[in-house]
Amino acid sequence: MSMIRVGIVGYGNLGRGVEKAIRQNPDMELAAIFTRRQPEDMASTGLIKHISEAEQYIGKIDVMILCGGSATDLPEQGPYFASMFHTVDSFDRHAKIPEYFDVVDASARRGGHASVISTGWDPGLFSLNRLLAEAVLPEGNEYTFWGKGVSQGHSDAIRRIRGVDNAVQYTIPSMDAVDKVRRGEDPVLTARDKHLRECYVVVEPGEDLSRIEHEITTMPDYFADYETRVNFISAEELQEKHSAMPHGGLVLRSGKTGDNSKQIIEFGLNLASNPEFTGSVLVAYARAISRFAKEGFTGAKTAFDIPFSYLSPKSGEQLRRELL
Amino acid sequence: MSMIRVGIVGYGNLGRGVEKAIRQNPDMELAAIFTRRQPEDMASTGLIKHISEAEQYIGKIDVMILCGGSATDLPEQGPYFASMFHTVDSFDRHAKIPEYFDVVDASARRGGHASVISTGWDPGLFSLNRLLAEAVLPEGNEYTFWGKGVSQGHSDAIRRIRGVDNAVQYTIPSMDAVDKVRRGEDPVLTARDKHLRECYVVVEPGEDLSRIEHEITTMPDYFADYETRVNFISAEELQEKHSAMPHGGLVLRSGKTGDNSKQIIEFGLNLASNPEFTGSVLVAYARAISRFAKEGFTGAKTAFDIPFSYLSPKSGEQLRRELL
Repeated sequence: MSMIRVGIVGYGNLGRGVEKAIRQNPDMELAAIFTRRQPEDMASTGLIKHISEAEQYIGKIDVMILCGGSATDLPEQGPYFASMFHTVDSFDRHAKIPEYFDVVDASARRGGHASVISTGWDPGLFSLNRLLAEAVLPEGNEYTFWGKGVSQGHSDAIRRIRGVDNAVQYTIPSMDAVDKVRRGEDPVLTARDKHLRECYVVVEPGEDLSRIEHEITTMPDYFADYETRVNFISAEELQEKHSAMPHGGLVLRSGKTGDNSKQIIEFGLNLASNPEFTGSVLVAYARAISRFAKEGFTGAKTAFDIPFSYLSPKSGEQLRRELL
Repeated sequence: MSMIRVGIVGYGNLGRGVEKAIRQNPDMELAAIFTRRQPEDMASTGLIKHISEAEQYIGKIDVMILCGGSATDLPEQGPYFASMFHTVDSFDRHAKIPEYFDVVDASARRGGHASVISTGWDPGLFSLNRLLAEAVLPEGNEYTFWGKGVSQGHSDAIRRIRGVDNAVQYTIPSMDAVDKVRRGEDPVLTARDKHLRECYVVVEPGEDLSRIEHEITTMPDYFADYETRVNFISAEELQEKHSAMPHGGLVLRSGKTGDNSKQIIEFGLNLASNPEFTGSVLVAYARAISRFAKEGFTGAKTAFDIPFSYLSPKSGEQLRRELL
């Protein structure tokens, strides 16, 4: 087995998820982790380097997995690293994807490298299922539900309320809405019909709980139009029960064929750790892009352009025998 | 839009499903349907031809969708038609797939054509999900459940019992077993733990129902080891309520990442018409193989080798903008 030498750029939750995923894949080898912090400050395995050293790893790293944020890191790091390495990233600003694709594509071509952008689970596996279901059932409706999972933006909004010490907000699919879709009723659903919001809130001593609950449930855009449940808990309970990073969701397509035959396709994820799962997806796509690069491909791809056989270490013959 | 001219070989349930699916895809055009029966016996749109005329359509049909059975039709028709046309089929004898692939591949290469074998939903979409989930979660267990759907083999076995006039047998997933998997319990399940068998049976007048029920529920291999429910109904009720062809099922993978984080991936189908859905999948793959053929590919592929972007009539740019 020829080893794929992987580098990680960015050592937050996602970077750590990628690091763990590499250990589960015997054809992968972690070559280095690049961070903007000072590496000597960190519990170091000797693999943690300052991001400015990355250039010295040209020829020593096959695929660089970019684990920075989509707001400011990736718009800069995506094209920069694609000029030197094959890359994989999880750029998730849907509206900006076309533009980001073009920039990374141009940089990868100039540098003779291959990149996968915007993979993970959404964008990524969910997108793949939207595409597959639409291609198979051209007449129908698509529904995406997210959760149960933490929404960082909503948690932050609660934390900005006076008297709130800490908060975690879960977005939860409305099972009523899901069941309507599963029964083939083709409901018209807005985002707020599809999701509930559950809040775990730690308040400062002596605060008026009903005032805080009212401020949360009436907050425009964030909560006012949703079914919102507020639970006040202690700082210890928040730490103990709500510091994991679960997530998941469902993509459904309800379509019709022939003489009105109802056909339902459903894809769902139930994830105990969002960053570890996303990291696992990125690692599978690192394998794929390394194989495309070996075949001479240069430029950018998305998950849409990659056959699943490229994600697996198994040969085509083995896949046909074992999994078809 | 350049039209894809499609031919259908075999005009049973699946062939009719393909015919209906073509009507839902504006870039597809039904060129001819080939059957072994005498076309003049059939309600004819003028498109129904005897199978011996197929050769005359070389150059007039882009993709031939082969809708014959896997037992005897496809082993012969697969390589035969691949020598003259691009082809798509749903060959589903799992153990024979590697051999069938090689034969079709060789014939397609010699003829300069491109073929997709063994697509549909199982093999097909279910196989894709097994592969994807294994690549993303290398440490874990895979579970496939079938149903609710009619098993032809089990229905036939009941019909062979003395005194039985007609019968339909549904294979139904055990929701107990499904829920154990969904909860991440990683149960060890045999086929019989995973499925119930529900039988609707029409008997001849004066027969002993308890004898027939006993013969069904104790039948080795087919029913003895399963939870089996037997319902005696009238011929009219069987015709009215049990002549549709629903099917479906679930593919689950329960895996672990990092420090024991449980991650569940689930793909499910709930199909009112199995042949119409399978036909819809075959038509999407006809689009894909026609595009591979235009790019110069010759030989055989499976769903594993085909990026989802090839299934859609939309451009890569449009897919990234709308579905990623």
